[in-house]
Amino acid sequence: MALEKFFSPNSVAIVGASADTKKVGHVILKNFAERYTGRIYPVNLQEKEILGLKCHPSVSSIRDKIDMAVIAVPPAVANSVVKECVEKKIEAVVVITAGYKEIGTAEGVLRENELEKIVEGTKTRIVGPNCLGILDTETNVDTMFLPEYKMDKAVAGNIALISQSGAFASALLDWFFSEGIGISKFVSYGNRTDVDEPDLLEFLLHDKKTKCIVMYIEGPKDGRELMATLKKVTKQKPVVVLKSGKSTAGIKAAASHTGSLAGSYPVFRGMLRQAGAVEAETLDDAFDYAKIFSTQPAMKGKRVAIVTNGGGYGILCADACTEECLELAELSDRTKREIKKVLPSYSSLHNPVDLIGDANADRYRATLDALALDPEVDAIVVVSLFQTSSLGPEVVDVISGISRTRKKPVVVCATGGAYTGTLVKNLEESGVPVFKTPNRTLKALRALYTHSRNR
Amino acid sequence: MALEKFFSPNSVAIVGASADTKKVGHVILKNFAERYTGRIYPVNLQEKEILGLKCHPSVSSIRDKIDMAVIAVPPAVANSVVKECVEKKIEAVVVITAGYKEIGTAEGVLRENELEKIVEGTKTRIVGPNCLGILDTETNVDTMFLPEYKMDKAVAGNIALISQSGAFASALLDWFFSEGIGISKFVSYGNRTDVDEPDLLEFLLHDKKTKCIVMYIEGPKDGRELMATLKKVTKQKPVVVLKSGKSTAGIKAAASHTGSLAGSYPVFRGMLRQAGAVEAETLDDAFDYAKIFSTQPAMKGKRVAIVTNGGGYGILCADACTEECLELAELSDRTKREIKKVLPSYSSLHNPVDLIGDANADRYRATLDALALDPEVDAIVVVSLFQTSSLGPEVVDVISGISRTRKKPVVVCATGGAYTGTLVKNLEESGVPVFKTPNRTLKALRALYTHSRNR
Repeated sequence: MALEKFFSPNSVAIVGASADTKKVGHVILKNFAERYTGRIYPVNLQEKEILGLKCHPSVSSIRDKIDMAVIAVPPAVANSVVKECVEKKIEAVVVITAGYKEIGTAEGVLRENELEKIVEGTKTRIVGPNCLGILDTETNVDTMFLPEYKMDKAVAGNIALISQSGAFASALLDWFFSEGIGISKFVSYGNRTDVDEPDLLEFLLHDKKTKCIVMYIEGPKDGRELMATLKKVTKQKPVVVLKSGKSTAGIKAAASHTGSLAGSYPVFRGMLRQAGAVEAETLDDAFDYAKIFSTQPAMKGKRVAIVTNGGGYGILCADACTEECLELAELSDRTKREIKKVLPSYSSLHNPVDLIGDANADRYRATLDALALDPEVDAIVVVSLFQTSSLGPEVVDVISGISRTRKKPVVVCATGGAYTGTLVKNLEESGVPVFKTPNRTLKALRALYTHSRNR
Repeated sequence: MALEKFFSPNSVAIVGASADTKKVGHVILKNFAERYTGRIYPVNLQEKEILGLKCHPSVSSIRDKIDMAVIAVPPAVANSVVKECVEKKIEAVVVITAGYKEIGTAEGVLRENELEKIVEGTKTRIVGPNCLGILDTETNVDTMFLPEYKMDKAVAGNIALISQSGAFASALLDWFFSEGIGISKFVSYGNRTDVDEPDLLEFLLHDKKTKCIVMYIEGPKDGRELMATLKKVTKQKPVVVLKSGKSTAGIKAAASHTGSLAGSYPVFRGMLRQAGAVEAETLDDAFDYAKIFSTQPAMKGKRVAIVTNGGGYGILCADACTEECLELAELSDRTKREIKKVLPSYSSLHNPVDLIGDANADRYRATLDALALDPEVDAIVVVSLFQTSSLGPEVVDVISGISRTRKKPVVVCATGGAYTGTLVKNLEESGVPVFKTPNRTLKALRALYTHSRNR
């Protein structure tokens, strides 16, 4: 199976490498030249050298063994380059070039069919055409050709993202990176003439750098195959699926976007559930679920403890907990005794635990210590409203300390501006996911529980 | 009616003003000393002068007329100070002091009952006790005693926020300000011994600086009165209501937080709808709805046009449009002709209008111009994925130009990191609300439609 070569090639040919800084073929070559440590072979008929790298007039003129080719030439010649790649026994080919079936003309469809036939029965696999290709934060394979200044710098992490839509994925990646959320691998596979979702899922199942998989899909090529693969993968890793083309209007739009048959959404949804995947109903969900899966351990039961320094937030969290079909934990007597020691005499000792507006880090510490040991509690939601006078930045260490014990999930809810933002960043850097609102916090927790239970 | 005096007093007595910078009475005095332009009378028995202002030993010892008093003294003496205020004929009294019925003891309840009786039948009105009090961004009345560095600087605007919970409100305000969303007035009324939601709603209805009202409530004192007032107010201004204490667990938590009887949520919900209020199901909704109401004109029908440079986002928007019970507009022939001029020949001319990944600002301009004039379109959703090479920052002016015609709502959906963030800020500063995801964009639009229709 050649998929490994897409992510860890020893040598890469970039066909359509260009000296013109505005061209896709230049941006891609530059990505590799700057960060990739394997051998790079720019292919360009006219130029002798680009970015200090010797050019080759064609793929076949390269003497050395090539593991991967990236093709960014006009559509009229792309297929003949792929043919050369097959002859040269290149196992991984990324066809960036657009102008295939996605344009909806007979010419485009013919070109796509021809491409499919070129690799049929060979050892060459194709990602694309009409795609952004691949980003691997470990090996620095990076075929994304978006202007660098328009996107936040890639962050390495344990989330893999695979996406039928390139623009969608680049926006989501940009959002991930801006919040310090790292990815292991990203694949935009465009028209998926060859490599498709099941291939990628199967590969990512065995990828040690990947802890969870996020997937954007309009419609599967083969629903049954996808579900069979999902069933296998989700036994070991969470797969978050954002499906578009759910409504009549959306299905119509999907047909004209990628030509996908989005199919019946209720059926797809039921199949996802059976396959153990976690559906993200919205893009916000996909983001939040990725964040919680990438950092938190399994949630063994549905009993949640809520700790807060704002009573209103406690109520909102309790409501959200119910709405997400989770349960408020009954605190053990030991926990109540411990909390009683640090709270004013008139405080109630119920869950949500209201540490009251004048809570400081010590009050959080005593409470979180008790909850971490409480066998009645499966996960802890910590509301930290950093605007109050008494709550100092020390609480960040308190929370991340508890979280590091790694015995149960700990998530934080914090709303605010710049000052809060700094503390949120500190929390997230220490591996504690923070959500801005009660509903999003509990919804993410529910996704974690759903996967833990399914597994 | 004395409520005006809470927001535009000519003179303010601050009782419990302190020289100790850590004390609430110091922070409040400092707020006034720095920004408020009326006369300020610190009241403190020991000190002669604080922050350069002459102190008075008691309220009754002040010779001049006082419009408003802010009380931040220990609970044991607070009621006697209020008595003095009544005798001095002060019409607006904010009791910051906590230790009333919210502590749940007999002493607290007695104290609250006594406070109620002190002002009964007088011209003195009380906001509080146990509250953050008032912030007026025009007159700079500001009784919020949170450390300045922990919250973003207040932004003036047209949203009024009234909240039963102080901590909730400070977190939400901080979030508003951090995104440049401005407020006209803010009231945290705590235990609402006297001034309550109907009083405030009635006042805000006539407040020229307020375009929309956001309200956080656990349970009303008098549900019927609240609904009657809402019915009146929502005929002229949108009121966004975030209710907490919806679930059994939440109702229990609310009872121990503010002692509110949250009551039956389905009943409350039905009443809200009948009263023409817009319910925010979540805190995210409350934020988003405030943003759209503060900037956008009425939405006269439910027909939405979607314009995008990412096909996937178009589909997600179409799905969300359906989910929010809005409709995708059928574009007029004129609009289709205009769009056809700027799009590649193979493009489909349907709604969502996919301007394709290589769209530039000109393509957006031609399309938005046509949609703005299209009588079949009631609102425009513009998806701007700024990561693509071809879409320059000029598109910001294009979108805000269209929006300024003010004939129909224009909202933007943009996801991303730092670069996108800068352009989003520019858009929002020009009065165009931007939402991070398709679902949030369409949900906000639906709220706008709901209010426009109710009215």
